[in-house]
Amino acid sequence: MKTLVAALALTLAAMTQPAAAQETSQPQRWTLVIHGGAGTIDRNRITPEQDSAIRAALDAALAEGSRILAAGGSAMDAVEATVRILEDDPHFNAGRGAVFTWDGTVELDAAIMDGSTRGAGAVARLSTTRHPISAARAVMTDSPHVLLTGTEADGFAAERGLEQVPNSWFHTPERRRQLDELRARQSADAGASWFDVDLKYGTVGAVALDASGHLAAATSTGGLTGKRWGRIGDAPLIGAGTYADDRACAVSATGSGEYFIRVGVAAEICARARLAGTPLQEAADAVMADVHALGGSGGVIVAGPDGEALFSFTTPGMYRGRANSAGLREVAIYGDE
Amino acid sequence: MKTLVAALALTLAAMTQPAAAQETSQPQRWTLVIHGGAGTIDRNRITPEQDSAIRAALDAALAEGSRILAAGGSAMDAVEATVRILEDDPHFNAGRGAVFTWDGTVELDAAIMDGSTRGAGAVARLSTTRHPISAARAVMTDSPHVLLTGTEADGFAAERGLEQVPNSWFHTPERRRQLDELRARQSADAGASWFDVDLKYGTVGAVALDASGHLAAATSTGGLTGKRWGRIGDAPLIGAGTYADDRACAVSATGSGEYFIRVGVAAEICARARLAGTPLQEAADAVMADVHALGGSGGVIVAGPDGEALFSFTTPGMYRGRANSAGLREVAIYGDE
Repeated sequence: MKTLVAALALTLAAMTQPAAAQETSQPQRWTLVIHGGAGTIDRNRITPEQDSAIRAALDAALAEGSRILAAGGSAMDAVEATVRILEDDPHFNAGRGAVFTWDGTVELDAAIMDGSTRGAGAVARLSTTRHPISAARAVMTDSPHVLLTGTEADGFAAERGLEQVPNSWFHTPERRRQLDELRARQSADAGASWFDVDLKYGTVGAVALDASGHLAAATSTGGLTGKRWGRIGDAPLIGAGTYADDRACAVSATGSGEYFIRVGVAAEICARARLAGTPLQEAADAVMADVHALGGSGGVIVAGPDGEALFSFTTPGMYRGRANSAGLREVAIYGDE
Repeated sequence: MKTLVAALALTLAAMTQPAAAQETSQPQRWTLVIHGGAGTIDRNRITPEQDSAIRAALDAALAEGSRILAAGGSAMDAVEATVRILEDDPHFNAGRGAVFTWDGTVELDAAIMDGSTRGAGAVARLSTTRHPISAARAVMTDSPHVLLTGTEADGFAAERGLEQVPNSWFHTPERRRQLDELRARQSADAGASWFDVDLKYGTVGAVALDASGHLAAATSTGGLTGKRWGRIGDAPLIGAGTYADDRACAVSATGSGEYFIRVGVAAEICARARLAGTPLQEAADAVMADVHALGGSGGVIVAGPDGEALFSFTTPGMYRGRANSAGLREVAIYGDE
């Protein structure tokens, strides 16, 4: 009945109202998908308290992004705001709570991409900018470049008025413990795998479709515990960990970044949809299978131009959530949820 | 007549020789394509002496890569050796003769990718490693990472025994003049385009198909004159400026890197061939047209699994060359050659 009334109202509006008014009277369709990292996440490793806190953190981020999208805000604004909340939350490996480098500091990477223009901005190896995702957006809007790095990129962010904090602001005891553990293992066994640390991931990301039909993607991370030699992973690399294209999809990835770079995961999922017409879930699953075949693991979140909101991951769990204009609102951690 | 004799010899060999001997008696098919940058290169801007010197430099690089491939060497060895020669040559914006950053130093980026494994290595913001392309290969073979950056990456290269030089080793008066000119223009007009400097490019690259049917790609660059804030362009980004996949093609790009990152040029050309069956020339031209539509310019070199060796560029000229096992050996500079 409601639908009939709405349809009638629209028909009447079409006869009597100017175009702009018509548009605002139509339902605002939007979609938001977020992640807080994929990894060896199972019920034996997470206490009930951690479980609750992580779900609450994911839901808070989802709430903020949903609020923006429901009000007709842009996908770019929604993914940036969502990621900022996750960056501030010490549960995730991004911003505050990021993992330590081999040298005991924190170095932050982030990227954002606007599917309507394929404009993109990214930063890597930041050490004092509180919200790397906002620095990435400033690179996109206020510089002729896509990727800025190092203390110089912090300087760029500071010039644009983005909040600077001491590196210690990002530090947490849990991440320090993980570094100490890694170092001990490496001392005991020089051949120990770099990719074999519990809860090694925790990258955060968001993808969205807004009411205007535009897609956006954002990813932020501290990278890999014990990273050294100025290592940069997939998160800030456009096409690898982050991609958005209104013609195809928006993707944010998390996992063993080196494999994601080699496969070009985020762009490849979009390319399969755009060039081969592959449905997004099938495309995401196939690309994650390719990563797995090379030896990597992790997951992706994907939003599509028709409101698709999906996950694909090869790990036991992925911190994740999604919401849309039809009333969906859910968070999950384990693979069997 | 020669062909007939050869065909007869092969037929006889097939009847009388074991399989291994047959293989070695077959002609070793290989392909090599190189570039030394694309840009506003036309006959009014280049003296006859420069023209000759650049052609000789391209031919010398082509000769070395051809020698390796003709002897049955790998595509990876061929592209690395070819790029090392171009890095040492001051005519090109890579290694010695690289452009200056805004701060008056040289920072070098490079990437290499093996199409047979999709293994990849890359470096960015090196300042003391003489051959960045060899550092990129060391990242691929001797680290668990794909992309290492900064002085830490120089340290990694030095640990692997790669030659270190003072930053001044890379400096040339001509590049210093280009920086001074850019600074003067920026002072006069703060809104002057970053992408509007004569001969701004000069990135070098090589792609090859070897006798075993494997593809490889390599790219090395000093980036953009006057780059700052730790800017990294497309060259060292796997999928943007460099990609190789035996199933599709090997690509090295040069041009206004930011646009190449947003389009994911190198991986996109391979994706069109692999996912849509698009012929490589058509795929390369379409992707360069996409870059142009976004506002960018430049060029790519492409090698394919069937021995394809092609160029596509939207600039007036591109320093380039190609050679193959059928006896092709040519270098060119201008668009009308």
